[in-house]
Amino acid sequence: MRLVIIGGDAAGMSAASQAKRQDRSAEVIVLEKTRDVSYGACGLPYKLPCGQKMEDLQVVTVQDFREKRGIDVRLEHRVTAIDPATKSVSGATPSGPFTLSYDRLIIATGARAIRPPIEGLDALWGEGAYPLKTLEDGRNLKATLMTSPPRQVVIIGGGYIGLEASEGLHALDAEVTILEALPHIVPFLPEALRARIYDEAEAHGVTIRCNTLVKSVSRRDYITIAVETSDGVLDADLVVVATGVRPESELAAAAGIELGAANAIAVDDTLRTSVPDVFAAGDCADSRHRISGMPVWVPLALRANRGGKVAGANAVGGERKAPPIMGTAVFKFFGLEIARTGLTEAEARESGFDPVTATIQAPTRAHYYPGGGKLSVWLLGDRKSGRLLGGAMVGPEAAAHKIDTLVAALDGGMTPAQLYDLDLAYAPPFGPSWSPLLTAASALMKAMRSAAR
Amino acid sequence: MRLVIIGGDAAGMSAASQAKRQDRSAEVIVLEKTRDVSYGACGLPYKLPCGQKMEDLQVVTVQDFREKRGIDVRLEHRVTAIDPATKSVSGATPSGPFTLSYDRLIIATGARAIRPPIEGLDALWGEGAYPLKTLEDGRNLKATLMTSPPRQVVIIGGGYIGLEASEGLHALDAEVTILEALPHIVPFLPEALRARIYDEAEAHGVTIRCNTLVKSVSRRDYITIAVETSDGVLDADLVVVATGVRPESELAAAAGIELGAANAIAVDDTLRTSVPDVFAAGDCADSRHRISGMPVWVPLALRANRGGKVAGANAVGGERKAPPIMGTAVFKFFGLEIARTGLTEAEARESGFDPVTATIQAPTRAHYYPGGGKLSVWLLGDRKSGRLLGGAMVGPEAAAHKIDTLVAALDGGMTPAQLYDLDLAYAPPFGPSWSPLLTAASALMKAMRSAAR
Repeated sequence: MRLVIIGGDAAGMSAASQAKRQDRSAEVIVLEKTRDVSYGACGLPYKLPCGQKMEDLQVVTVQDFREKRGIDVRLEHRVTAIDPATKSVSGATPSGPFTLSYDRLIIATGARAIRPPIEGLDALWGEGAYPLKTLEDGRNLKATLMTSPPRQVVIIGGGYIGLEASEGLHALDAEVTILEALPHIVPFLPEALRARIYDEAEAHGVTIRCNTLVKSVSRRDYITIAVETSDGVLDADLVVVATGVRPESELAAAAGIELGAANAIAVDDTLRTSVPDVFAAGDCADSRHRISGMPVWVPLALRANRGGKVAGANAVGGERKAPPIMGTAVFKFFGLEIARTGLTEAEARESGFDPVTATIQAPTRAHYYPGGGKLSVWLLGDRKSGRLLGGAMVGPEAAAHKIDTLVAALDGGMTPAQLYDLDLAYAPPFGPSWSPLLTAASALMKAMRSAAR
Repeated sequence: MRLVIIGGDAAGMSAASQAKRQDRSAEVIVLEKTRDVSYGACGLPYKLPCGQKMEDLQVVTVQDFREKRGIDVRLEHRVTAIDPATKSVSGATPSGPFTLSYDRLIIATGARAIRPPIEGLDALWGEGAYPLKTLEDGRNLKATLMTSPPRQVVIIGGGYIGLEASEGLHALDAEVTILEALPHIVPFLPEALRARIYDEAEAHGVTIRCNTLVKSVSRRDYITIAVETSDGVLDADLVVVATGVRPESELAAAAGIELGAANAIAVDDTLRTSVPDVFAAGDCADSRHRISGMPVWVPLALRANRGGKVAGANAVGGERKAPPIMGTAVFKFFGLEIARTGLTEAEARESGFDPVTATIQAPTRAHYYPGGGKLSVWLLGDRKSGRLLGGAMVGPEAAAHKIDTLVAALDGGMTPAQLYDLDLAYAPPFGPSWSPLLTAASALMKAMRSAAR
């Protein structure tokens, strides 16, 4: 039994490891187009400051995969075609082309950074303007930062990667401006909580400009890049492009494999694609949302690791199911933890729910306990079923971990009244006796009652 | 309609406030035996260090209860008898006896510190040996600490109050020894996690001696108290007694009201006692455990506040139900967060479950993210039903908030496999991509499988 896996990051290497764990006799070959496997891509923004090493993001070395786990990892193997008819893949290495047959195939090609259609960007790509998606991207950006520390940085894109990167760049004493084309940053957050991010940015001297489309970038001189926007021209000596990612699914599409949500590879809950013996896992594949039941594309690390395990198990004869996703996400921005799960209000409406929301602020510690701050909690419920649909939290502490309470509550199909009745933990260093989640549940119960009138 | 409430702390004042919110015309009289109402008793240990004020524990003042909420709060009114036949209570004030009729009565007398049968303790009570249960206790201890800072403190009792107090006393540069008569501290924690508390105590120079029964205390001289134990004599210039609490239920028992778990007042889920028109709420009353369905007594703040609201609402004609408790508790001990919920292994066995446990340690941040430490997670499941029954966590961060995820999971009746499939939050500053809870769930799944063989 030969299992071929295209892509050697989170999903691919999880799949390979799981397949070998389950079937020692399986021949497992991983084809990775770069020289890197299995690294913590989520850590890239945190490795920008001095004293932090990109190479620390490595999780397991190629050597360990080969020697300890018996996985045939082949680096610099770029697959250019999948042929389901002959059950083979073909591609190129630095030393020439290759073709390889498979009994089972797992596509784990991930996602790639979007290069937005900005005039002059191609010319500066990697020479003044940098993405931050792969470990190689990280090395390149880091080398530039260390050899020519920038004074003025423009980040194109106000999603969480842009925000995380701004903190790392700010730590290098750069003046950072984030340009966002949309009217607001971090689309998955409710408007009610975004103000706290703007305030935090301002407190740290990071400028965020929304409704600001970048039209062109061009070198003014050896050091300075002119960034022309819909709202004037800015000077920068470094540009970071963080305008999102898209699934790396073209290879699959060319082989006749069906695409699903956001043009990611469509998979069922066993992670099988539309083509026999071909699985897909990780950021290249779509999944199902736990609340809406709709196909969605959420490229995040836990799902990739989990999907890899499921695909690896099933490729060697297992019958596991990949759990649906809840849309949970968290990130840090200076002194704030920002977390969300479930549906957004817009997604709720699109999925046929009748959304009701409530927002509260509550202290993160007892009123008499030193330190802490305010936790903002936003909850989303469905007027018709009375159930919770989602939530978000922003605060100086507690948010990153408390969001998981809501994940479990949503998974259990709880109403705000059931959430309100939970025996949640209390001690003065960790919150008021009525947990902010309970206060938020109470507010949503009120909002639902008045919405029902 | 006259509602009389005995006791003016968390449950009593929550009840009074809720009753007035629901029925402005109700006459609500609170009889409080001390001069204090509505304070955060959980904060007492945190107010021992210099610079911290006991009076900050006050939540709402008597004046505000009277003027803003229309509640007739009567201080220094000690109730000595309840007469259900005449629907009246009687008692004493500094200026003489009183009798008061009621239409509805709420007993919210709380709990009191246990004074253990130690020879010589009565003579030193308040003059060298101090409890730490009421705000007045806090004032007394604080005054002693500030006027005669102790060099050697003995804390009798290794429960969470004793541990919390040790931290506050250590901050005053006292040498602290905790004496515990049982073979271990913090009974509600699984043995597997206790080692971390011993390590933390040692790291901060706090001595914990288990299996050490205190036999007598006596003054050696004006400063020093000799603490005679089953394991030798210790010198102390201050003794703190933290050997637990018991429900203040004698008044109710004398009136013929049935007692329940741990001799707390037995209540149904509307918080009615066995006697018509008499409710009980807070630490004086028992409750039902969400997992075992058994009557239990868990004197904690959230339950008291919540019970007060329910009793207050129902006393003026509402029909609310007090939710069952999950046994959730959390406290801080120096750099550790210690949290638990659900059943202990012993409780599970007593309740007829077939317990299986698993313990794991996992990092609280991604391996490449600076700081953090190890989170220990212990999970308890039932072999027969396959369900989760409880859990506990100890770590330098995350434990206090992550425990709530388990509360929601337990409430939903989840199996470890369902917990393992949750889409929990991940970002490098807050944990590994596989949350420690997921790793623990996986370990419990394995333990259940091998236990089933």
